[in-house]
Amino acid sequence: MTGLFITFEGPDGAGKTTQVKAFAERLASMGHEVVLTREPGGTAISDKIRSLILDPAHTEMADSAEVLLYAASRAQHVQEKINPALKSGKFVVCDRFVEASIAYQGYGLEIELEQIKRINQFATGGLIPDRTYLLDLSVADGRERLKARTGLDRIEQKGAAYHERVRQGFLEIAKEHPQRIRVIDASRSVEEMAEEIFADFTRWLTEKN
Amino acid sequence: MTGLFITFEGPDGAGKTTQVKAFAERLASMGHEVVLTREPGGTAISDKIRSLILDPAHTEMADSAEVLLYAASRAQHVQEKINPALKSGKFVVCDRFVEASIAYQGYGLEIELEQIKRINQFATGGLIPDRTYLLDLSVADGRERLKARTGLDRIEQKGAAYHERVRQGFLEIAKEHPQRIRVIDASRSVEEMAEEIFADFTRWLTEKN
Repeated sequence: MTGLFITFEGPDGAGKTTQVKAFAERLASMGHEVVLTREPGGTAISDKIRSLILDPAHTEMADSAEVLLYAASRAQHVQEKINPALKSGKFVVCDRFVEASIAYQGYGLEIELEQIKRINQFATGGLIPDRTYLLDLSVADGRERLKARTGLDRIEQKGAAYHERVRQGFLEIAKEHPQRIRVIDASRSVEEMAEEIFADFTRWLTEKN
Repeated sequence: MTGLFITFEGPDGAGKTTQVKAFAERLASMGHEVVLTREPGGTAISDKIRSLILDPAHTEMADSAEVLLYAASRAQHVQEKINPALKSGKFVVCDRFVEASIAYQGYGLEIELEQIKRINQFATGGLIPDRTYLLDLSVADGRERLKARTGLDRIEQKGAAYHERVRQGFLEIAKEHPQRIRVIDASRSVEEMAEEIFADFTRWLTEKN
């Protein structure tokens, strides 16, 4: 028996963290064993890599180093936490995964997509989510919501053109995997989004079984 | 005008650090502008990655994460320090480079060599040393010399079979690149090795020009 791997993707400010938590809690309340996790991070080593990546002081970070650090953090996360949980039949709900690297580093930093995919294939050992929710929000709306936060990290501080490429990248990826990735309009209320996600998930799970 | 990139490879205990330093000082005393550096490390970000990799507490580190962390450290090092120095015509002398990853992670951890090469090709942008000295020492001799040190790092603590694979890996790599890599018998005295390296380098430099 293997579990299910569900990922949430989308820009900062789209409400991912809230939705991931609500979704995981609802699954747990139905009696499923749920592991809630996030990237970059999710293990002690991965969290140290996360701090390195996001430290606003690291303005000199090379794009290629960023790609490799995200992949390193992910490799540790998959091997130490995600794979063991899936093997024991749990539902793993993860805030960001490979598609975040394709969108942010591939489309955002304009690094060859094939390179990002190959490096991440090595990092994950080929693990692909069973279902993915892409929370889509206009760059303007996302920036507006982020204004309320203090202390933006190194990625959040990048300019609007970068974030626009990231958004379009996410939408491209969703188009390539219409069976797996469901795009959620994140301009709506927290409750509306949560309902749509959960309704989709239960329908998908029923059809699958 | 571009500079020259000279790397030193070999196991722990072979005397690399001493030789690298002696070699760089001799080049500098001849009037060359020399940048002496090492891997993993060489920049502020790379040094932080180095600490992560070598921390003896990180016994749970996944092999794939190790590969990607070394590559990330290297990517930053190449872009921030090595490439700019080479572009300004300096001699860059580096303690370990890509071949260390092929030997330690490819041969040592038995990860597919092509994967290591591809990831490092991405990390370095294809940068290859102009001349490489491989300090070769039997595993038994290397371990003997390391005994004098206290606080071995996470890599140094691995077993003898691992270190034997690493040694044979280095020798394989040297066989593949006989024009560039010179194998130095590291069972001899510091002075003998330094003489052989410098004599080889000056001959090579003369033939090259």
